[in-house]
Amino acid sequence: MITLAVDCMGGDHGPDVTLPACRQFLEHHPDARLLLVGQPASLQGLVHERASVIAASEVVAMDDPVEVALRRKKDSSMRVAIQQVKDGTAQAAVSAGNTGALMAIARYLLKTLEGIDRPAIATQLPNAQGGATTVLDLGANVDCTAEHLLQFAVMGSALVSVLQERDEPLVGLLNIGEEAIKGSEEIKKAGELLRSAANVGDLNFHGNVEGNDIFKGTVDIVVCDGFVGNVALKASEGVAAMIVGGLKQEFSRSIFTKMAAIVAYPVLSALMRRMDHRRYNGAALLGLRGLVFKSHGSADVLAFEQALNRAYDAARNNLLDRVRARVAHAAPLLAAADAQPTP
Amino acid sequence: MITLAVDCMGGDHGPDVTLPACRQFLEHHPDARLLLVGQPASLQGLVHERASVIAASEVVAMDDPVEVALRRKKDSSMRVAIQQVKDGTAQAAVSAGNTGALMAIARYLLKTLEGIDRPAIATQLPNAQGGATTVLDLGANVDCTAEHLLQFAVMGSALVSVLQERDEPLVGLLNIGEEAIKGSEEIKKAGELLRSAANVGDLNFHGNVEGNDIFKGTVDIVVCDGFVGNVALKASEGVAAMIVGGLKQEFSRSIFTKMAAIVAYPVLSALMRRMDHRRYNGAALLGLRGLVFKSHGSADVLAFEQALNRAYDAARNNLLDRVRARVAHAAPLLAAADAQPTP
Repeated sequence: MITLAVDCMGGDHGPDVTLPACRQFLEHHPDARLLLVGQPASLQGLVHERASVIAASEVVAMDDPVEVALRRKKDSSMRVAIQQVKDGTAQAAVSAGNTGALMAIARYLLKTLEGIDRPAIATQLPNAQGGATTVLDLGANVDCTAEHLLQFAVMGSALVSVLQERDEPLVGLLNIGEEAIKGSEEIKKAGELLRSAANVGDLNFHGNVEGNDIFKGTVDIVVCDGFVGNVALKASEGVAAMIVGGLKQEFSRSIFTKMAAIVAYPVLSALMRRMDHRRYNGAALLGLRGLVFKSHGSADVLAFEQALNRAYDAARNNLLDRVRARVAHAAPLLAAADAQPTP
Repeated sequence: MITLAVDCMGGDHGPDVTLPACRQFLEHHPDARLLLVGQPASLQGLVHERASVIAASEVVAMDDPVEVALRRKKDSSMRVAIQQVKDGTAQAAVSAGNTGALMAIARYLLKTLEGIDRPAIATQLPNAQGGATTVLDLGANVDCTAEHLLQFAVMGSALVSVLQERDEPLVGLLNIGEEAIKGSEEIKKAGELLRSAANVGDLNFHGNVEGNDIFKGTVDIVVCDGFVGNVALKASEGVAAMIVGGLKQEFSRSIFTKMAAIVAYPVLSALMRRMDHRRYNGAALLGLRGLVFKSHGSADVLAFEQALNRAYDAARNNLLDRVRARVAHAAPLLAAADAQPTP
């Protein structure tokens, strides 16, 4: 039996989205139990033999500063959900709340794994191969050092080996050119560390990749600084939204284009399904002593259920142990890297 | 009369693309003259009363290291084209060659403007408003300081005021959140510098923007570190290519989808025209004592002509004087920023 703790109050829509998603998830997973965390009055919409309510009187707002979420709202649904993971009553927690607050509370309650300085946020993005590329970090960390990037690569490899059942997933280092001499000093140093890790069998390192490789599917995992990853992700969402918006505009221009839209509709919706970002919802917070998944704040029922699926898969496949084992295996290298003075 | 020096040998296709593009450009601009720079034997395809050949015996290859281009190929078409700008025989140079080599040679021959530490590469990207967003830097500079970002904002404002005739273009600072407290230390400092510049009337500063704002068209100019800008640009190209590839795939799946494609074709091609990246070809190298424009290496005839148009518009509207004037106006602030110790 897998038990997930769900912050039912988080996200833009709260229980209106989280409860129906939880119900669907339970129907699709007969071996799962859910702890529905939140204000009991708001959670009456879901009664299920494998769901129980855990009361939490407060809610972290999407715009609450980290300090408020962390220090003032000690009985928030987000915090109580993560506490379930700490206490061992749940194997993973899922929230669609404020990312900064989620990371801060998770870090405060669960602590980081030995050998990991900074937890990272990892998500999957669809690629042209029909598969998905895992990218980390996506904004939890700015000004990452080469050592942090090495840690991300190790943790990302564990994640992909669990979620996609690839034993030796291929890692690329995000850079502005494929040549090893490109990029900032920190990136060049990261390239060296990743090559060393590959030499001792800790990683399957491809080398540098560029922004477009994320969507080409050149590698399984793209490692980058959180600032860069966040900008790349949002820029990509911006382009996709512009193209979809443009399609709608062009198809609604006249009676003729509207007729064309009717004919093209099945084809376009097949494409939309394939690239539907909701299918990729559910980012992992990696590097903590417990599993926490983050859903998009604007997730709908389908998307939130997908985040629950992610957390379920991770828990069932012992992601935490896999990350721990990979980090332990790479420990001598991680320690050596950390001991080197940064130039 | 506007005279442009064209590196006819540069780019993936060389004279096969550059010469037909030059011919079309001359037909569309009766007041323009072109200096066709390259190996004379390769340039016989274009004879025009307003075009003359300037011989250059060498060609910078797309994969030549910067040092080779700069020190060993002193008679390259790229270098001779830029030399024309230095000598005053042309008002701007255009090349589709290797970006690193172009920037290095341009910087070596032309030098940077007073008050500018590093030249930047600025390009325009289509946005959902139907307009274009100017982004800089796109990869000429990694590890930019706050002072560099301020310089980019000043130069970008001059570029947009010339090419889009907007007197006070709106500048956004690329960050991972809209709040002023977000981002790395360097970005926060850049935010402060940009606000100071806005306070004394040197800039029209909107505040922080995120990756998706590039394509939303929230601001006219997005300022960022070259590493970040390069990744954002390439990630965006990657998504667009994946969506277009997916459309082609879905529409060619069966006889029915192929029929749908025929019906939808005019609508889809209207969209493609609107978002055609070739229309946005021609990046400006800003901050030099002369005008240099860079075309995509893979540009076709239409795209390369567009880069020539950009250079022509810039020369006709005295971009160089406008940049100089803006930099001079902001000189006290730029100097004060430079004098501050970096934390």
